[in-house]
Amino acid sequence: MATHSEALTGEMFIGAARVRGTAGTFRAHDPARGTWLEPVYGGGAPADVERACTLAWEAFDAFRDTDLETRARLLDTAAQRILDLGDTLIERACAESGLPRGRIEGERGRTVGQLRLFAEVVRGGEWLEARIDSALPQRQPAPRPDLRQRHIAVGPVAVFGASNFPLAFSVAGGDTASALAAGCPVVVKAHNAHPGTSELVGRALRQAVADCGLHEGVFSLLFASGTVVGAALVADPRIKSVGFTGSRRGGIALMQVAAARAEPIPVFAEMSSINPVYLLPAALAARGADIGRKFVASLTLGAGQFCTNPGLVLAVDGPGLESFLEAAATVLRDSPCATMLTPGIHAAYEEGVERLVSHSKVTAIARGVATSGPNQGRAALFATDADSFLNEPVLQEEVFGASSLVVRCKSVEELRSVTERLEGQLTATLQMDDADLPVARQLLPVLERRAGRILVNGFPTGVEVGHAMVHGGPFPATSDPRATSVGSLAIRRFLRPVCYQDMPQALLPEALRDGNPLELWRRVDGQLVPPATPRR
Amino acid sequence: MATHSEALTGEMFIGAARVRGTAGTFRAHDPARGTWLEPVYGGGAPADVERACTLAWEAFDAFRDTDLETRARLLDTAAQRILDLGDTLIERACAESGLPRGRIEGERGRTVGQLRLFAEVVRGGEWLEARIDSALPQRQPAPRPDLRQRHIAVGPVAVFGASNFPLAFSVAGGDTASALAAGCPVVVKAHNAHPGTSELVGRALRQAVADCGLHEGVFSLLFASGTVVGAALVADPRIKSVGFTGSRRGGIALMQVAAARAEPIPVFAEMSSINPVYLLPAALAARGADIGRKFVASLTLGAGQFCTNPGLVLAVDGPGLESFLEAAATVLRDSPCATMLTPGIHAAYEEGVERLVSHSKVTAIARGVATSGPNQGRAALFATDADSFLNEPVLQEEVFGASSLVVRCKSVEELRSVTERLEGQLTATLQMDDADLPVARQLLPVLERRAGRILVNGFPTGVEVGHAMVHGGPFPATSDPRATSVGSLAIRRFLRPVCYQDMPQALLPEALRDGNPLELWRRVDGQLVPPATPRR
Repeated sequence: MATHSEALTGEMFIGAARVRGTAGTFRAHDPARGTWLEPVYGGGAPADVERACTLAWEAFDAFRDTDLETRARLLDTAAQRILDLGDTLIERACAESGLPRGRIEGERGRTVGQLRLFAEVVRGGEWLEARIDSALPQRQPAPRPDLRQRHIAVGPVAVFGASNFPLAFSVAGGDTASALAAGCPVVVKAHNAHPGTSELVGRALRQAVADCGLHEGVFSLLFASGTVVGAALVADPRIKSVGFTGSRRGGIALMQVAAARAEPIPVFAEMSSINPVYLLPAALAARGADIGRKFVASLTLGAGQFCTNPGLVLAVDGPGLESFLEAAATVLRDSPCATMLTPGIHAAYEEGVERLVSHSKVTAIARGVATSGPNQGRAALFATDADSFLNEPVLQEEVFGASSLVVRCKSVEELRSVTERLEGQLTATLQMDDADLPVARQLLPVLERRAGRILVNGFPTGVEVGHAMVHGGPFPATSDPRATSVGSLAIRRFLRPVCYQDMPQALLPEALRDGNPLELWRRVDGQLVPPATPRR
Repeated sequence: MATHSEALTGEMFIGAARVRGTAGTFRAHDPARGTWLEPVYGGGAPADVERACTLAWEAFDAFRDTDLETRARLLDTAAQRILDLGDTLIERACAESGLPRGRIEGERGRTVGQLRLFAEVVRGGEWLEARIDSALPQRQPAPRPDLRQRHIAVGPVAVFGASNFPLAFSVAGGDTASALAAGCPVVVKAHNAHPGTSELVGRALRQAVADCGLHEGVFSLLFASGTVVGAALVADPRIKSVGFTGSRRGGIALMQVAAARAEPIPVFAEMSSINPVYLLPAALAARGADIGRKFVASLTLGAGQFCTNPGLVLAVDGPGLESFLEAAATVLRDSPCATMLTPGIHAAYEEGVERLVSHSKVTAIARGVATSGPNQGRAALFATDADSFLNEPVLQEEVFGASSLVVRCKSVEELRSVTERLEGQLTATLQMDDADLPVARQLLPVLERRAGRILVNGFPTGVEVGHAMVHGGPFPATSDPRATSVGSLAIRRFLRPVCYQDMPQALLPEALRDGNPLELWRRVDGQLVPPATPRR
């Protein structure tokens, strides 16, 4: 297909217009080389937010009313346009993130797959959740009117790109894909760690909007040299929802802006999780060393820069735990450093590790190989006891990167009571054998209350994009535990129900008309009814 | 059935214990007679909130894990126990609310019907939204794990009783029914306007909990002499969600408490709506007078004390509108006063009407018959022009009671531009004939953005409890337009998804086990699959 050798310009996409930001400048940084990359990006100003939101609002009614096939085609086209960027995209994303080529290629596959999944979700139409309660004109004491319900898009959505997934959680990532699928125009605030990647993907999305003949306001991409643009975007009255993946501080700041609006809006922020891994007694006794080795592989994957990185290990003290620690330490000591995403993230990691190194209640178990070069994240494993963990809030803070803390518990009871005092998590993982079933049964209700996803004998890194995935969880893992930011259920964040009472057929949306012209699954008088011709 | 002649005690229900509040006292008031009712109620203190929340938390894991039939039986039993209260309940509710017996009997039917509807919803199990993505062990480059998802209860819910529905939106109203259905223990803060009704219904619910052998913490009922208890309840870390129906000020105050928590939680507040009624040109020309008469019937129903009371009429000026106004005025002038719920509500209504009477841009069209007696709400109809309406924010404020404002527009275009500047609404109503279809088509997208329910040729008062109803809408109608507080979808407010990855059958919740032991509809690899034996 076409190659995209057009040079990066450093300009935003405000609808169809390329606009050079005038509020400060910044450049991308190559964290592996410690060098700055061209071009210079101009940061947007509040007037750019205003313009992008005006366009998004203008686009909204027509975009949410597009037929299912048109909207699905937008997502499919965006996927193809991203693939068409070819190596230009891969190389730029690698340079800006320090992530290896294989990882970026995999992430591109995931991004494209995500867009295509949501295209299928749109086509399926089940997200409309069409419901019909038939009129009962003879009912006493009063007739029942004809009531029909469908879901519609909430409005333009602000999406904040994440540093750690320059493709899959960024300009055309899961938030954008699910918002567009719902029928919401999207205004993206690019992450400053990968502006070139953002510009390339922005170009692909912009082209897809044009290819499909849609209003330019369906997609805009803003750059920003500070926090003003992001806050202005969330505060804009035409923005009706927010998708964010990033730090706890950043997410909370946006939640506060959203709550302070004249019309408060929901924020779906995915923020902070230390993803406890439970080593249950029988599993630990039978295969402590093996678990230790696999654990380190998960811990160090991608320099530990995953929301689901296993930053906490909980186990009952004993010989099994010693085997685990010994094996983990052995592997870890041979683990090379990996380039971290940005100097800021690297510095924060170093600080976080230093906090643990110098903490009187924490023992260092092992460090990875020290490598020279900029922004090298050196893996680290620490241990503490349950009392210290519970009494020192700092030990429960996420250290973003390949650092983990093992908490030695005296008993299964203590394991459970530590769990009760954990903050909300994206994941919780049980390493268990059959003999651990009674303990697992005891822990499960607590884990369900604390996490969005519970794994058995796996590791939390690696988040499948499908229908059953939940990438969410109680605060501070996310701002709203009723949502997921990965998987087909993510579309629900951007939908709201509307009821039509006694509306004539000619005025009803197609999804709700007699005869079921869209061939949808519908709930009629409380019963799920399949379409006469199945859609898929 | 059994009659419940036990005297009211003025005590709270904190789990199984009857507790006399020690923080202030209050009594119910009979607004029709202007007299105070026995007994004296003791207001709760923060320690009572603490105790109720402790019990709710203790009850939570077991309650959310009850089988579907047990939880459905709780709701059915509560419905029966409420019926068993017989005339005692009807008489007390009438005395405390000033509402006529027929209305209270109807509301009891609705309350009982609502509990039974949610019992059926629980039994159906579709709220679990079971999803299974099968393992793909051979997938390249990496196998797909087995992923299963279900929804679980979010945690204990705080419910605030509403003044205007002493049964249907109060102690055992829609919020309580849907929260219990979801598996959430409930702590109710009773509305001070009807403590006796609350105590009676609280007794019925408490008995139902005991009848079903459930943990006492599943339900508690608190009284309060001020706002401290409500704020403490929303701030309690064990409360995970809030249901509220009441004033905009009250709802926003609770939203702020919830947002300021260490773990912010969602608040589902149904607050303020003026429910615009559009008189489209052809309908107005053909039957302006008839619409005017029916409009007044909706306006004055229940002294106008409905969230969906039609407080705003929008029409293009002309002879049709004059017919409407003349007919409405004629009927209104003969409308008797009706007793309002409380002296406070009556005073606020009088103030709101006085604001309109004395407003230089507002013309009084008609007032109802002035009746002597306490707390008599005298209906009122006013008119203004579109410019004034848009330039005077006070004219868009809800006047709770039987007052409505007609806005004369110069054109359909002006009608639309006024609509664009309306705040979020629970409902919008079109009075239209076939010839109005083009205008209706033009308005519909705007109305969908502004309201949760759109009616044609009806009136917004009267909210069906079914599957397709939406009683919600953009702020300030509610705090979260993605939710409804009436109808079966209301259960979703209190549920969150959890994903289970590679979990052994023995540990999986029944809803997700192979063989589908609960006989649920499940989404398997993206396809909806019916149970082998249909449940219903």
